[in-house]
Amino acid sequence: MTDLLARAHALDGADPLAGFRDRFVLDDDLVYFDGNSLGRLPKATRDRLRHVVDVEWGEELIRGWDRWIGLCREAGDLLATGVLGVHPGEVVLADSTSVNLYKLASAALSARPGRRTIVTDDDNFPTDQYVLQGLARARRKRLRTIPTDIDAGVSLDAIREALDEDVALVSLSHVAYRSGAIADLVGITAAAHEVGALVLWDLSHSAGSVPVPLAEAGADLAVGCTYKHLNGGPGAPAFLYVRADLQTQLRQPIWGWFGQRDQFDMSGRYAPVDSIERFLVGTPPVLAGYAALEGIRVTAEAGIEEVAGKGAALTGYAIEIVDAWLGPHGFALASPRDDTRRGAHVTLHHPQAWQVSQALRAAKVIPDFRTPDRLRIGLAPLYTRFVDVYEGLSRLREIMSSGSYREFPAERARVT
Amino acid sequence: MTDLLARAHALDGADPLAGFRDRFVLDDDLVYFDGNSLGRLPKATRDRLRHVVDVEWGEELIRGWDRWIGLCREAGDLLATGVLGVHPGEVVLADSTSVNLYKLASAALSARPGRRTIVTDDDNFPTDQYVLQGLARARRKRLRTIPTDIDAGVSLDAIREALDEDVALVSLSHVAYRSGAIADLVGITAAAHEVGALVLWDLSHSAGSVPVPLAEAGADLAVGCTYKHLNGGPGAPAFLYVRADLQTQLRQPIWGWFGQRDQFDMSGRYAPVDSIERFLVGTPPVLAGYAALEGIRVTAEAGIEEVAGKGAALTGYAIEIVDAWLGPHGFALASPRDDTRRGAHVTLHHPQAWQVSQALRAAKVIPDFRTPDRLRIGLAPLYTRFVDVYEGLSRLREIMSSGSYREFPAERARVT
Repeated sequence: MTDLLARAHALDGADPLAGFRDRFVLDDDLVYFDGNSLGRLPKATRDRLRHVVDVEWGEELIRGWDRWIGLCREAGDLLATGVLGVHPGEVVLADSTSVNLYKLASAALSARPGRRTIVTDDDNFPTDQYVLQGLARARRKRLRTIPTDIDAGVSLDAIREALDEDVALVSLSHVAYRSGAIADLVGITAAAHEVGALVLWDLSHSAGSVPVPLAEAGADLAVGCTYKHLNGGPGAPAFLYVRADLQTQLRQPIWGWFGQRDQFDMSGRYAPVDSIERFLVGTPPVLAGYAALEGIRVTAEAGIEEVAGKGAALTGYAIEIVDAWLGPHGFALASPRDDTRRGAHVTLHHPQAWQVSQALRAAKVIPDFRTPDRLRIGLAPLYTRFVDVYEGLSRLREIMSSGSYREFPAERARVT
Repeated sequence: MTDLLARAHALDGADPLAGFRDRFVLDDDLVYFDGNSLGRLPKATRDRLRHVVDVEWGEELIRGWDRWIGLCREAGDLLATGVLGVHPGEVVLADSTSVNLYKLASAALSARPGRRTIVTDDDNFPTDQYVLQGLARARRKRLRTIPTDIDAGVSLDAIREALDEDVALVSLSHVAYRSGAIADLVGITAAAHEVGALVLWDLSHSAGSVPVPLAEAGADLAVGCTYKHLNGGPGAPAFLYVRADLQTQLRQPIWGWFGQRDQFDMSGRYAPVDSIERFLVGTPPVLAGYAALEGIRVTAEAGIEEVAGKGAALTGYAIEIVDAWLGPHGFALASPRDDTRRGAHVTLHHPQAWQVSQALRAAKVIPDFRTPDRLRIGLAPLYTRFVDVYEGLSRLREIMSSGSYREFPAERARVT
């Protein structure tokens, strides 16, 4: 046994989260390095969905709403207290991440009416950039997009330079989708607050993978998805966070009946509730919402500090193997080397990254590809073992040694 | 056997849709009069969801997106061709009805920049009114809300009076949520087009219950839900329709990555696709979307003309029983008496409607209550038999004769 493999076994043996692996539906032959794109299926979710479909929908029918009406808040409260470290009533499950970004960014602009600038960075996830571009055009604002070193992530200094009294809103990702770099949420929030701007964080890659210091920062607004590290299922509903004291100061632009005070009075005049539910719009997704709730529950039970600790160890171990085996094959690290600056994925540059990613799939290793030359290796701490990292990267080394990746199409097809 | 019961048996015996009842999960003791609020569970949906969860999510994991990426269009095309009578590529599954209303109403206002008026009616569903109120405020438009006789539904004459060259958008429901009255979609669309306005129809109560003459009208825009007559499940994703030639003329305000050309290039600049997908925003709801698809499929297989024919017969038969039995107990019809002017539900006024609706639930008859004094009886044609109408209204007669409804709280609680 090599030293690296022996260490994997030792690390797995000492892993306090080892038992959580059994909570998920697994296929032992597959090395899944994409839990940061779509998390695995929790067994509890499978069972809960059967109950929701067969009994609650199938038998209770409309009477199920007596329970379902509280679902978005129930899931939001669990996410708030069990994962994000904020108060009940500050988070709610709702819509998609993009729609939530729109609602909160729009509300923030309305709360700073005299200011004309929105700040983001060019490493922000595309949908975030598009939403802000659309709002900037509709609201006649200037969108200032800061250039960022993609492998290192957005820097506090760069944001600080872009800030002045004209900035209404700063909108950034907490963990970068390509590099996994963690932004300085506390520092950036403080700098924005100094000039009177609001900050909207996208937590899609951080919720469920690293602690999110919303409370420490006194953060204003956040959104995120539940289908990555929260294991909520494909296209699961997203969430949004609004700090309690800000809620009644903000009005989101899509006035729907689930944000309405005394909703079932069916009154003709919109008057939003005073709670986080004012950021809801239409009828909530019940089936997908219960899947999200069960996914969130697994992370809440594991504890986010434990999850993050294992994430850092897994990605650190992966970097060690990359250094030992893969540099000679043309791979270079495209993520921060500092453990405290990385989420739960590691990204590698390689000129033939697209071909390599296809060869890995054929070898039953599922990584992710990100344009133009990045292989993204997600190491979801709840179900990834150190031996999985070893095994997956061993198969990668074999692919590179044999050159078999050259048999795959060089032209990129649609991937997620 | 009474004449009315004998006729029920005869009508059921001659029902060409009788076989479709077996497609649904049923409870023979329950009389379900609320399929227009939440449709029943199709057996095919139960099976499909198990496959999507256990195999596609659980085993295929991220690779499932090779199939899921086409889901919203697949469901939209089936709804377009199988239910709504429009072309493939004119309908797509997306978001909630409220969010879709916002997107399309906003796009319509942008397409008529010089005009300052939005027209709706006060019988429109509350969320429709709220969305329009929010847009009117944000876009500095005047919202003209026409008073409507709730039991009769919106009239072409009233809308015509409200129309002039300043109207950008008319937004109405095709089938009214309280009375079930069918609006003159063709006449109102033509009248609006005469003054150069666009029309946005809410099909929530008509999609899957009556033919929707979008093609005949040359209708511009529509939205609707799939959890009522389309049996898509609680909180199922909604749909939107945009006439093919209008699509590239309109830009919706929420610029998300699922509306982006070459989505996975992850380019930094939003450039929407030229097809119906430009009205998509975020990652689509896969689990709930497959449930919607299977629900739509049942209606498409039955045929909307057959469904509507049975709906008219069921509601006509219910009115006959109301006339024969329930007038003396204080009930009055709150829906159009003309078969061709009703969707698949019948509504009754009663001063104690809330108490009566609770007594019915206790007697295993599930109607709906609508403020302030309406009992709504939904008769979903795919699984409701004429004997169910007879049985449910017999239990209602018994409740009224015995006065047992007076034992239930007079004060209204939250209902859906």
